[in-house]
Amino acid sequence: WEKIVSKIVEVGRDTKSLGKEDPRRIIHSVKVGLAIALVSLGYYFDPIYEGFGVSAMWAVITVVVVFDFSVGGTIGRAMNRGIATLIGGFLGVGVHRLATCFDIKALIPIIIALSIFIIAAIGTFARFFPKSKARYDYGLLIFILTFCLICVSGYRDDEVLDIALTRLSTIFVGGGATVLVCVLVFPVWAGQDLHNLVADNIERIGSFLEGFGEEYFKVMEDENAKDKKALLNEHKPVLTSKNIEDALINSAKWEPRHGKFRFRHPWGQYQKIGSQTRELGYRLDALKGYLNAEMQSNPEIRANFEESCKKMSYESSHALKKLAAGIRTMTLKSSTKAHIADAKAAANELKSLLKTNPWQHHDLLEVIPVASVASLLVETVCCTIKIAEAV
Amino acid sequence: WEKIVSKIVEVGRDTKSLGKEDPRRIIHSVKVGLAIALVSLGYYFDPIYEGFGVSAMWAVITVVVVFDFSVGGTIGRAMNRGIATLIGGFLGVGVHRLATCFDIKALIPIIIALSIFIIAAIGTFARFFPKSKARYDYGLLIFILTFCLICVSGYRDDEVLDIALTRLSTIFVGGGATVLVCVLVFPVWAGQDLHNLVADNIERIGSFLEGFGEEYFKVMEDENAKDKKALLNEHKPVLTSKNIEDALINSAKWEPRHGKFRFRHPWGQYQKIGSQTRELGYRLDALKGYLNAEMQSNPEIRANFEESCKKMSYESSHALKKLAAGIRTMTLKSSTKAHIADAKAAANELKSLLKTNPWQHHDLLEVIPVASVASLLVETVCCTIKIAEAV
Repeated sequence: WEKIVSKIVEVGRDTKSLGKEDPRRIIHSVKVGLAIALVSLGYYFDPIYEGFGVSAMWAVITVVVVFDFSVGGTIGRAMNRGIATLIGGFLGVGVHRLATCFDIKALIPIIIALSIFIIAAIGTFARFFPKSKARYDYGLLIFILTFCLICVSGYRDDEVLDIALTRLSTIFVGGGATVLVCVLVFPVWAGQDLHNLVADNIERIGSFLEGFGEEYFKVMEDENAKDKKALLNEHKPVLTSKNIEDALINSAKWEPRHGKFRFRHPWGQYQKIGSQTRELGYRLDALKGYLNAEMQSNPEIRANFEESCKKMSYESSHALKKLAAGIRTMTLKSSTKAHIADAKAAANELKSLLKTNPWQHHDLLEVIPVASVASLLVETVCCTIKIAEAV
Repeated sequence: WEKIVSKIVEVGRDTKSLGKEDPRRIIHSVKVGLAIALVSLGYYFDPIYEGFGVSAMWAVITVVVVFDFSVGGTIGRAMNRGIATLIGGFLGVGVHRLATCFDIKALIPIIIALSIFIIAAIGTFARFFPKSKARYDYGLLIFILTFCLICVSGYRDDEVLDIALTRLSTIFVGGGATVLVCVLVFPVWAGQDLHNLVADNIERIGSFLEGFGEEYFKVMEDENAKDKKALLNEHKPVLTSKNIEDALINSAKWEPRHGKFRFRHPWGQYQKIGSQTRELGYRLDALKGYLNAEMQSNPEIRANFEESCKKMSYESSHALKKLAAGIRTMTLKSSTKAHIADAKAAANELKSLLKTNPWQHHDLLEVIPVASVASLLVETVCCTIKIAEAV
């Protein structure tokens, strides 16, 4: 009994934190409930019910299945479902007509079953194409479904065309209601989300770099900089963000003009920036490895590197943060360039420091680790410049 | 016209390569067609049709929607659909009974619409929980769907319990047929796929390392080692494999005992190995950055490093490949340990080389890049050891 209570409390806490993290989730849930209740109300009015009959439930099914978190996702699914039903329905009617042409009752089930087998197999295979998988997977599923349903129903009911048309119109009603509710009541735009995600990722990388410069040169002294440690995990979500990004880009492509985004916004560009950000993220993960590495440099030598390394990570971090802010407001700030120039200067400084080679009589083994960190940071600066160019 | 022909030729070529890449795709498509045709045949036999009536189409829908590429995925979806229909159906019947209790005809639609709104909103919100999203997302969708359908149908037809029961039994028939076809005809096991994916990823990393050692020390000489270049992209799919892995683990958890896998195979372990493999992959991506980096070391100094670096990458590569082979056959080979020991020895060799510091009079700037590569390789060796422990 106590177990159940603690379980309920836990679920309650999770619910609260999920809602707090993104209040749009609560709004979304209410929107879905609203749309379904709205469409099902149509079932109670006799004039509407007379028109559709039992098929009216297809409208309800459409709402449940089509409603997605973002506007783009909803429109995409609604379009997929509508067009797939249209094509599948008419193909089904065609096959039915063809089968009845032969006028031999026993032959009809065989022809229909055979065509179902062929169409379902082809449709299923088409879902494996990478291009169709990304955008039309749901449509192909509905196509197979509608085709089979129309074919099968046709055997018991000769009004196949009627069935197909009713199904199509109920889906249009359900899909239309869904899209309307989704767009009119607190819409969530996938394009906006994508935009924010890309900017967030760049900012995360920036925060990591900010924390890293401090952390690496402090690690020898005291160990209770907990909040800095947190910064060093900032880059983790970036590394695995590819799939979310791809899904958002797919949804965003369905969206009409909204806010500051034009209709044919260059969504592909986000993909490029995203993959470059991830590449930089990989470098940083390697950098992080040095924090706990076995080989550590002599503190004295470390101090030599400290200034330019700190400067590089600091300036790159600020350049990235400025870039993120620039993406958010869609204006490129000139101060970004200044930060990048400073980061470059620090990298050159480091190079000249290395040229003078002040550690001739030191054990080289002690120089290497910090030098590696430094050279990875130089790479980081290069990556930063690439991202800045892509924006 | 020519455009259409070339398009068709292109689609044909794609189809062929998709089928060649994984022939199980073709088998899967045929299986789906078979299952649907089989279930729809039931529609033509009068005794079966009498039992279910028009609801028989739910069996067809179930087959189309539930059939997944792997056995685990299919069983998971079928279970989700079955249990969700059961719960949603009986809750729907309950609400319908409650609403008719009041005996005021005008009140019924309001009570039903309200309960639909509440249940749909709660159900939609529950889909955001990370745990339920991974395993029960589809079930929650079906739960909402069934509940709404039963509630709505109840208004026009008083036999709600009958509707719910027919729906449930048709879904059992459809789901059962799907699972049977999926398991009996050339089954595809998610567990086996996961197992192979993890081993493949480790092997890819191994191939990369094998190519890298050669490539890095050759870059100065000649530039037409094209096949080595290909090896250096081997690690790319590893970096973004997280989502595929998670999906496979989810499916694998639904699978019964099969082949060399017990029922409660430690699937979580694959997740650990996978994430460590990816971490190593990130390091390698950083290493790859050095191939085209601006700063390059003096060839003479490079030659000093060559032997131990090559040995490190060679030995780690072989250790990883042996590990991958060991995972495949589920036996740990002792030769893996030998390779790891050799890699460690090479790392130590490098360290002592650095201690002697033979480049006192060289420009340190020219030592650093190759030294960084070397120290990243040392890190790589460490990661390899970690993976070996996890296996």
